[in-house]
Amino acid sequence: MTYTELVEQIKIKKSFLCVGLDPDTEKMPKHLLSEEDPIYEFNKHIIDATAEHCVSFKPNMAFYEAYGLSGIHSLEKTMHYITVNYPDHFLIADAKRGDIGNTSTMYAKAFFKRLEADAITVAPYMGSDSVKPFLQFAGKWAIVLGLTSNEGSADFQQLLLSDKAFYLRVIEACAQWGTKENMMFVAGATKAQMFEDIRKIIPDHFLLVPGVGAQGGSLSEVCRYGLNSNVGLLVNSSRAIIYASDGRDFAQKAAEEAHKTALEMQQYI
Amino acid sequence: MTYTELVEQIKIKKSFLCVGLDPDTEKMPKHLLSEEDPIYEFNKHIIDATAEHCVSFKPNMAFYEAYGLSGIHSLEKTMHYITVNYPDHFLIADAKRGDIGNTSTMYAKAFFKRLEADAITVAPYMGSDSVKPFLQFAGKWAIVLGLTSNEGSADFQQLLLSDKAFYLRVIEACAQWGTKENMMFVAGATKAQMFEDIRKIIPDHFLLVPGVGAQGGSLSEVCRYGLNSNVGLLVNSSRAIIYASDGRDFAQKAAEEAHKTALEMQQYI
Repeated sequence: MTYTELVEQIKIKKSFLCVGLDPDTEKMPKHLLSEEDPIYEFNKHIIDATAEHCVSFKPNMAFYEAYGLSGIHSLEKTMHYITVNYPDHFLIADAKRGDIGNTSTMYAKAFFKRLEADAITVAPYMGSDSVKPFLQFAGKWAIVLGLTSNEGSADFQQLLLSDKAFYLRVIEACAQWGTKENMMFVAGATKAQMFEDIRKIIPDHFLLVPGVGAQGGSLSEVCRYGLNSNVGLLVNSSRAIIYASDGRDFAQKAAEEAHKTALEMQQYI
Repeated sequence: MTYTELVEQIKIKKSFLCVGLDPDTEKMPKHLLSEEDPIYEFNKHIIDATAEHCVSFKPNMAFYEAYGLSGIHSLEKTMHYITVNYPDHFLIADAKRGDIGNTSTMYAKAFFKRLEADAITVAPYMGSDSVKPFLQFAGKWAIVLGLTSNEGSADFQQLLLSDKAFYLRVIEACAQWGTKENMMFVAGATKAQMFEDIRKIIPDHFLLVPGVGAQGGSLSEVCRYGLNSNVGLLVNSSRAIIYASDGRDFAQKAAEEAHKTALEMQQYI
């Protein structure tokens, strides 16, 4: 998916919501556990229920790898279900990969070719030759970890270098390896005021923003400091939407929660 | 596996070699491609041929994920084959994972419980709560990326903070979250002189050293700057060993290459 197409979808839907698909059999409705593939069933219902309120879906790999082969099978089916039924939704593989060049290329092929993701999240610690292989595929995106939403972001990302915080240096360097057409950055909602500094470096790039909802970030703060003229934000919510209910009404409740968030977003578009 | 057990294995074998299991169907012997599971067949032969010369095996996840479900199946079989037949070999899942706390815990369970790895490589960018979940399993290890072997390590890892290079700060901080019994660091052979500074911070920890062989690092330099009284090194070689030949003699040639490396290591023990 291109930058223009993504912006268009956001304007049509009046939403920049990304729904995080982090299935956990301990949290999902009990009646699904007797299905042949509970994770896939759960995802399908969540996807169908929330698709009209969001522009993006983001499965986090950990929640599939935890179930071994059967989890990976559920993941492949879920990714395929989205690409076939919702081709206009931006599909993010939240994998946080990054390795030496030839190995990153293997990951890029796995996620872009085999799993048909539009984007993959990338950990930048190993530098340019670990990130660039993800930028070699037309219409595909690397979403680099800039400033993450967790407490640990203080340990290294927020360290002060001589002139600026480390995460700003990371964003500045990475932005030179790609363009706003093939690169985004993760910027946590829990640190929305820092978006002001981020926007000075990358005014036009999209930011993928986790941390609204269960992690406590505020949408209005995120918009205040992060919005640009093309919106430029994908705000993710996982737990607050997909676990809005653990009863038979879980999909309906997820839809209501997604709709509520989308309505809140409308004010800012 | 405990620190003491690992040191014991190194002393018995007089080797601190780790064989990297990075299967690539384009590089492996053609006659294996007609097998039902070429990757598993290839690995099994390499493992059986090299086991007596090494103390550790390290499959890199990218090389399995690239083949989708069938690749993950080959990985599971390979990990199981090692744990059953070579329980004294230290089994490293080279995955470079790291995510917010509850997600890192999912990864830890996937690799330690389901895949029975002794250790997993971890990317430190997201800080303490992304690393600590990997330290909560008895006898299991987090191997944190410190100074990697690739060119891109110059981009962020070697940036100068006020008092020291960033990678030293990372090692210093992470070393406080774990102990030499549950944490190691990746330190690339291509930067062996920098091991002097690393050893000032963590004299007793093990270092996992990639970059000898195809990437050009030197074993004698690594030993000169990295050895400690318990050896304290696991030196990885992947391509130089597993692709020593692409003919029917591939396992034999891999064994010879591993033996040659182990003999070179003997001098330093």
